[in-house]
Amino acid sequence: MTDFSRTKKMFHLPENMIYLDGNSLGPLPLNALNRLEKTVRDEWGELLIKGWNEANWFSMPTTIGDRIAKMLGAPPSSVIIGDTLSIKVYQALASAIDLAYERDAERKVILSDTGNFPTDLYMANGLINTIDRNLELTLAEPDEILHHLDESIAVLMLTQIDYRTGRMHDMEKITRLAHEKGIVTVWDLAHSAGAVPIDLSTTKADFAVGCTYKYLNGGPGSPAFIYVAPKHIENTNPALSGWLGHDAPFDFDLEYKAGPAIERMRVGTPPILQCAVLDVALDIWDGVDIEDVRSKSIELSELFIRLIEQQCPQMTLASPRDPKIRGSQVSFSFPDGYAAMRAVIDQGVIGDFRAPDIMRFALTPLFIDESDVTKAAKIISETVKSGLWKQAKYQSRNAVT
Amino acid sequence: MTDFSRTKKMFHLPENMIYLDGNSLGPLPLNALNRLEKTVRDEWGELLIKGWNEANWFSMPTTIGDRIAKMLGAPPSSVIIGDTLSIKVYQALASAIDLAYERDAERKVILSDTGNFPTDLYMANGLINTIDRNLELTLAEPDEILHHLDESIAVLMLTQIDYRTGRMHDMEKITRLAHEKGIVTVWDLAHSAGAVPIDLSTTKADFAVGCTYKYLNGGPGSPAFIYVAPKHIENTNPALSGWLGHDAPFDFDLEYKAGPAIERMRVGTPPILQCAVLDVALDIWDGVDIEDVRSKSIELSELFIRLIEQQCPQMTLASPRDPKIRGSQVSFSFPDGYAAMRAVIDQGVIGDFRAPDIMRFALTPLFIDESDVTKAAKIISETVKSGLWKQAKYQSRNAVT
Repeated sequence: MTDFSRTKKMFHLPENMIYLDGNSLGPLPLNALNRLEKTVRDEWGELLIKGWNEANWFSMPTTIGDRIAKMLGAPPSSVIIGDTLSIKVYQALASAIDLAYERDAERKVILSDTGNFPTDLYMANGLINTIDRNLELTLAEPDEILHHLDESIAVLMLTQIDYRTGRMHDMEKITRLAHEKGIVTVWDLAHSAGAVPIDLSTTKADFAVGCTYKYLNGGPGSPAFIYVAPKHIENTNPALSGWLGHDAPFDFDLEYKAGPAIERMRVGTPPILQCAVLDVALDIWDGVDIEDVRSKSIELSELFIRLIEQQCPQMTLASPRDPKIRGSQVSFSFPDGYAAMRAVIDQGVIGDFRAPDIMRFALTPLFIDESDVTKAAKIISETVKSGLWKQAKYQSRNAVT
Repeated sequence: MTDFSRTKKMFHLPENMIYLDGNSLGPLPLNALNRLEKTVRDEWGELLIKGWNEANWFSMPTTIGDRIAKMLGAPPSSVIIGDTLSIKVYQALASAIDLAYERDAERKVILSDTGNFPTDLYMANGLINTIDRNLELTLAEPDEILHHLDESIAVLMLTQIDYRTGRMHDMEKITRLAHEKGIVTVWDLAHSAGAVPIDLSTTKADFAVGCTYKYLNGGPGSPAFIYVAPKHIENTNPALSGWLGHDAPFDFDLEYKAGPAIERMRVGTPPILQCAVLDVALDIWDGVDIEDVRSKSIELSELFIRLIEQQCPQMTLASPRDPKIRGSQVSFSFPDGYAAMRAVIDQGVIGDFRAPDIMRFALTPLFIDESDVTKAAKIISETVKSGLWKQAKYQSRNAVT
């Protein structure tokens, strides 16, 4: 049984703040600064260029990828980190389109849903425009995806957990039905990794991507990850064919030759300081059972929903009521949600707002417990009911997030 | 006149090491760790998600981009940082191909040279394969580029300074002659930024990219930069259209709309820890005149060449002898250069090896002076002449770099 009082002590959590935004940016692991000091002072400072070998900088994308693979039920050498999630979406989708084209050049549709995170759709459009082969991106409503799986579809690209509502797709079932129609699948696990149990081998996803600054607590701008099913990897041509994905980067050949297994999905020089912090953030997961995280997250979410609905009926549950199809976040609709969230934040409870009217809160057992949830629900309810958010300072829209 | 004894004191330089590899990874600025501590402890730790606004994380790619723009003779809002150089090459080349296609859809050739850094060629090939429109990448010998500029060429993509030899293209002249033939230009300034004076406005380059971990000392994996000439930016469609390049990312529209000016070349979430270090590394350049850097670099290079040639005739100059067409590095050919460089490194002089036989040394005035050069030349010469590198431990090829 995972000891969450132990994991909570492994983070720096500011006083007088209840942080329900771990689905956007996880909090600071206490060990991060020590590790950064080591990386900066002892490695960059003392080894300089030799750090690539002697401090294992070069292999970090692989070794950290393997740690993430383990968390996702994927075999070694099937996951690698680097770049941003947007770039990894492009890379995965380009590879998926390639694979689908080889199977059946007549299929022209990339299917996604309206609940997908916009960057996935933007990157898909950018890629489709670049390919210039009459591909089209079609969006279904999330709960109608299964009705759209037919032989016109080349690639199905979905985000498992909706960033607004937390609604969770049945990844195993959708993948199975997609495969029955000969469709290649790309799953975005941005809101899944570290939030819910994932077993990529069982679900048989073809490609998957995700980010590490949310539930994996890698810090602002921590690199993304990409998974390619081992059966596809040797036929995968990375559209973004950078020199560090080359079979022998230091031969400096003029011709590209894809590297072994997932190594080919590397592109350019990895961000070593971010990698170091991510590595130490993953240490927190040693000894944590994701099944425990899931059941605790559901407990906390159910408590949170009950308390908010009791104390503040003005807020309407926007997440699925059934915890089995809900990720590790709970969202409420409130007409003036933007201002209300800013007022709530000023009262020390951090959630975030997503257009048009969503107040979003993450229940993250690694560092949030029942006492936090009870206090937070009280503060949120009182702030919303008080009308504090009607003040001009909360109404003005000058903030970015 | 720039005071280089002052800038030298702004770096951590290990004792008993002369670092002639600033063209690969610049040394640690002394202020980097303080800034990182602030970013990690005070910003990530205390502000968490609020850091995006309150600590100006969101605007860092722009503000740092503007600092780099100033160093490159480019106007504000024409340079932005993010991703890796490989990704920025892809982005710039995709935009350049787009622009060339609008002007003349019949042009099919992307021209580069055999001295270009392999990742640029790999990314170009990956892009060309993705576009799938019978484009072809043609490579000329570097000194024959001018003879290849004709109306078949859509885009000319060159790295100004050759990573192996330091040979420097005349950017202004080549760009002018390319423009006379209606060719769109993409310049890779990886070995130029911070090494030689660059004036993007005068040279009229259409697109430029570069990295920040070499002469700009941003640390391992520091983000890349991209420049788009202001006259092109409103017609530039970023192939890598990520949400942070959207005109209003936090509206979460399903449709992409490119952001203003260079903002559209942002893709995903920027690596904030790397950005913070880069920002403080650029502080060193305040009060530094790049013309002084250039003349000092030539002085040091001339001294280095003279000493090596006097003391070690076994090494053959591989860089241009004329300093006007040489960047801030000096390369020598030596048949067993790989082993020799490893032996030299063990004696405390850090350079690097590039296949097939290049021993490469950077003369970087910010932290290297005459005394370093004299000592280094002596150590290099003695090590090479001694045959120390014949030992088995230097001959075995297990190192990455």
